[in-house]
Amino acid sequence: MTTATLLVSCPDQKGLVAKISDWVFSHGGNILHADQHADSTAGLFLMRVEWDLENFDLARSEIDPTFKKLATEIQAKWSIQFSDYVRRIAIFVSKQDHCLYDLILRQRSHELSATIPVVISNHPDLEKVAHNFGINYHHIAISPNNKLEQEKQQLALLKQYKIDLVVLAKYMQVLSPDFLAEFPQVINIHHSFLPAFAGANPYHRAYKRGVKIIGATAHYVTDELDEGPIIEQDVIRVSHRDSVTDLIRKGKDLERIVLARAVRQHLQNRVLIYGQSANSDLGLRTVVFD
Amino acid sequence: MTTATLLVSCPDQKGLVAKISDWVFSHGGNILHADQHADSTAGLFLMRVEWDLENFDLARSEIDPTFKKLATEIQAKWSIQFSDYVRRIAIFVSKQDHCLYDLILRQRSHELSATIPVVISNHPDLEKVAHNFGINYHHIAISPNNKLEQEKQQLALLKQYKIDLVVLAKYMQVLSPDFLAEFPQVINIHHSFLPAFAGANPYHRAYKRGVKIIGATAHYVTDELDEGPIIEQDVIRVSHRDSVTDLIRKGKDLERIVLARAVRQHLQNRVLIYGQSANSDLGLRTVVFD
Amino acid sequence: MTTATLLVSCPDQKGLVAKISDWVFSHGGNILHADQHADSTAGLFLMRVEWDLENFDLARSEIDPTFKKLATEIQAKWSIQFSDYVRRIAIFVSKQDHCLYDLILRQRSHELSATIPVVISNHPDLEKVAHNFGINYHHIAISPNNKLEQEKQQLALLKQYKIDLVVLAKYMQVLSPDFLAEFPQVINIHHSFLPAFAGANPYHRAYKRGVKIIGATAHYVTDELDEGPIIEQDVIRVSHRDSVTDLIRKGKDLERIVLARAVRQHLQNRVLIYGQSANSDLGLRTVVFD
Amino acid sequence: MTTATLLVSCPDQKGLVAKISDWVFSHGGNILHADQHADSTAGLFLMRVEWDLENFDLARSEIDPTFKKLATEIQAKWSIQFSDYVRRIAIFVSKQDHCLYDLILRQRSHELSATIPVVISNHPDLEKVAHNFGINYHHIAISPNNKLEQEKQQLALLKQYKIDLVVLAKYMQVLSPDFLAEFPQVINIHHSFLPAFAGANPYHRAYKRGVKIIGATAHYVTDELDEGPIIEQDVIRVSHRDSVTDLIRKGKDLERIVLARAVRQHLQNRVLIYGQSANSDLGLRTVVFD
Repeated sequence: MTTATLLVSCPDQKGLVAKISDWVFSHGGNILHADQHADSTAGLFLMRVEWDLENFDLARSEIDPTFKKLATEIQAKWSIQFSDYVRRIAIFVSKQDHCLYDLILRQRSHELSATIPVVISNHPDLEKVAHNFGINYHHIAISPNNKLEQEKQQLALLKQYKIDLVVLAKYMQVLSPDFLAEFPQVINIHHSFLPAFAGANPYHRAYKRGVKIIGATAHYVTDELDEGPIIEQDVIRVSHRDSVTDLIRKGKDLERIVLARAVRQHLQNRVLIYGQSANSDLGLRTVVFD
Repeated sequence: MTTATLLVSCPDQKGLVAKISDWVFSHGGNILHADQHADSTAGLFLMRVEWDLENFDLARSEIDPTFKKLATEIQAKWSIQFSDYVRRIAIFVSKQDHCLYDLILRQRSHELSATIPVVISNHPDLEKVAHNFGINYHHIAISPNNKLEQEKQQLALLKQYKIDLVVLAKYMQVLSPDFLAEFPQVINIHHSFLPAFAGANPYHRAYKRGVKIIGATAHYVTDELDEGPIIEQDVIRVSHRDSVTDLIRKGKDLERIVLARAVRQHLQNRVLIYGQSANSDLGLRTVVFD
Repeated sequence: MTTATLLVSCPDQKGLVAKISDWVFSHGGNILHADQHADSTAGLFLMRVEWDLENFDLARSEIDPTFKKLATEIQAKWSIQFSDYVRRIAIFVSKQDHCLYDLILRQRSHELSATIPVVISNHPDLEKVAHNFGINYHHIAISPNNKLEQEKQQLALLKQYKIDLVVLAKYMQVLSPDFLAEFPQVINIHHSFLPAFAGANPYHRAYKRGVKIIGATAHYVTDELDEGPIIEQDVIRVSHRDSVTDLIRKGKDLERIVLARAVRQHLQNRVLIYGQSANSDLGLRTVVFD
Repeated sequence: MTTATLLVSCPDQKGLVAKISDWVFSHGGNILHADQHADSTAGLFLMRVEWDLENFDLARSEIDPTFKKLATEIQAKWSIQFSDYVRRIAIFVSKQDHCLYDLILRQRSHELSATIPVVISNHPDLEKVAHNFGINYHHIAISPNNKLEQEKQQLALLKQYKIDLVVLAKYMQVLSPDFLAEFPQVINIHHSFLPAFAGANPYHRAYKRGVKIIGATAHYVTDELDEGPIIEQDVIRVSHRDSVTDLIRKGKDLERIVLARAVRQHLQNRVLIYGQSANSDLGLRTVVFD
């Protein structure tokens, strides 16, 4: 079955559910899933609608222009994705292989509906892993001096491979604002329960603070380090018996699972970002329609 | 704000979201929450819609008859509840007080939108707790010989107090099919992760089996013991260090929280039961629209 | 059965388990539980030993002086508690009653082995709750101007009631360094997953940040606000569907459970504090021998 | 550092902690970890002691005979393992690769201290995975008719590869009592929260029952199907939105993690089995010294 998914946000007002579901229905679309949320603080209405394209009476090229009329009327931001469009992911890694293996294996077992044509790294270490699965590997060494230049190479590769989404799978490097301005679709896994232990060495700091639970956070990357909108988090219990090494080991399982869930939610068009910046009154947040 | 909530289930077919939301909208109702689910195995569509009654152009007495036309067309089972109708709960207890206190305190702090006019028990022990909060207490001793007779007394009290919902808060007695035929709205808390350790003494059996996690289950009561549709479950980790007494102590926190969540979901008209019996091909299940 | 519990910490060295368990055994004590931990970063050995006092050949008054010889040899900090000494708790509250009820009910059901002779509050609201359970209630209003003076009254009450432990059950006031210098045994519940959202209004800030999990933290109180050694933490999943009000409601269950666990661990002499300050290299941490 | 680990169980009696730790200390061993448990129902004392072998005054060949004297005195069952002995694991698989990959990658990243010289399967599907990591693969097809014969081949391979532990990583076959009599060290992962949904198709049955949480269980294999002593369990929340396919997908993460934890605990000599059969009064249980 081929489906279309509409993600839409607009100022809250009366009749939005009816108007939007009616638009789908009046064109012959059978709604499979509809979920909506009203954020009363923000005065925003957010909705996800997925419908069967069989018997839908609009050609794909007509869908956007046709919906635009309703969208303009309700002052909406919106996007429509089709289930048969397979997104292309570039995975950025450093030296750790656990998230890389995890994403590849989930993609191979059809948990992630996407292709992974390329892995990009600032280190040569994981080339063999990528090649084992027939994935191209580009080693682009980053130093403080050559960062912007090397990022241009990375961006050129993203263009060349027609990448839709970058996943930072323990990349351990900060992307520059310039990079993000040109390619904003980036998901990162941070190895702490943000906002606790933002920044470097979260496991060491968690150990020092003597917390009884550690976490991991998957979020979209923004200019503000570790402040991007959170997609998914999870935690695991630790005790005094766990050394920093144990925290790192336990955390690896969290990182894998949290990152994979976030990427899956993104690929299924379940995530809507809204708000302003993380430090504004409203915050910068996600709705995850699960 | 006063709202109406429609819970509806019907054979799955095209256009149901649009039809139902359109019905609300066409009568001037502003949809606050809409959630739906399609169970493809059962071929069923299930939906919850809550809307603001301000500006709704139907009087309350007209809503049911008016919706009936659409309901008949789509072959729906359905119910509509109003947020200003405060449900009346009878709590059945035995000797343990933790769930009783918990429900009363949540009701007092407005977590549970209901009144609790009466506590009924087969033991006199908890009379003082009920009276402390100004709640009537009826001691109806149950023995194998007088059970049906005593249940008639209980049913008379439910009528007298105009009870909408019975909550078995560690009642430790099985209600007869006759009781349930006359008063089917009953929620129970079972002190295990059902279907594990159905029946008596679940903590002792969990200890003996050496499980590493224990649980609690809130479910609607049916004629089949511990087989009613599950509303909510939760678990907690245990270890060899925990004796049966420790399992009981840890379990009490689970019982409280799981029961309270289930009662709250029920009171907010979030729970739809569907299917056949627990032993049928389809099972007897709930959708909890959270 | 009456038991003695030794909590001991000292520089790590060879033979400590044997020496300490041998000391107990050589005096006729039967060890019921022994647990130890070595923190290699701190170079510290920490141990908890609990033994049956029946047949122990030392009178209570002899135990401390006798153990002192071994303690001096191994350069230990240590304390010994007896299971028949019932600790006396003062609960400090503000206006919220959920943690107060929870602690009292757990004490009444023997989950907490202690007495609660007094509740102290900066508001009059919860007097009736305390009195219902036959507990004295002192209303000592705190304002920025009279804080130190009022704290002296509080300290006088702690003396008068022979209090061993103060539990801040949503007290919402910061104790002064002077108070803590005179009475350092204080456990607090903070309504966030520390160190995330230290300080005021954690639920509002958690909402704004869009976290997918919220938490609660029980810790000993030190001069550094929200930086005291953590005893227990727990978390619960939230989503965009949860308003700030929902976070507060869900958090109340966490607060209750986390605080009760911490108090219980403390009363059972399971918690050892070690390290320096939260901001030192080593941190200020607990071992919880569970 | 090379260590020895003693796992010991015996009838509970006075002075055991002191006697055992004294035995280690008197031979010059520095105890690194000591943990013990008394099961009062069974009247059993169980202990794990790990000590540094540097300066230990017994040669390896002398350790067993020397400890035997104390063991006989206290009527103990016991075993001693050395940390430099690397256990050899045979992984049994069927067609699913997620647990196989997981175990291999954890072994490669030194989370599991063992070697994996061979993978044995009743299907040819995963040969390439094993070969990618330089592991031998034997395809031994099992049918109802040839089972005992094929198991003899499997047992011959275990001998040939000098295997210490068999891990059933979604093997989907029941081992015969004959197999287990000859090779009893077998860990299995069952895809449910045992004892719920023992037997076949647990995810389908969990779906039908409408549970709100699913689990996985790692246990030692015994003659009684799915009744072996439990080593580790974990769970994940599900809802009506999850189809059977979703349960299977979510369950795969549980299976991986629960199996890996159990294997790791076993390899670190942290698991002691005691009791009778799962259906006896005492049960057949584990102590996991973590």
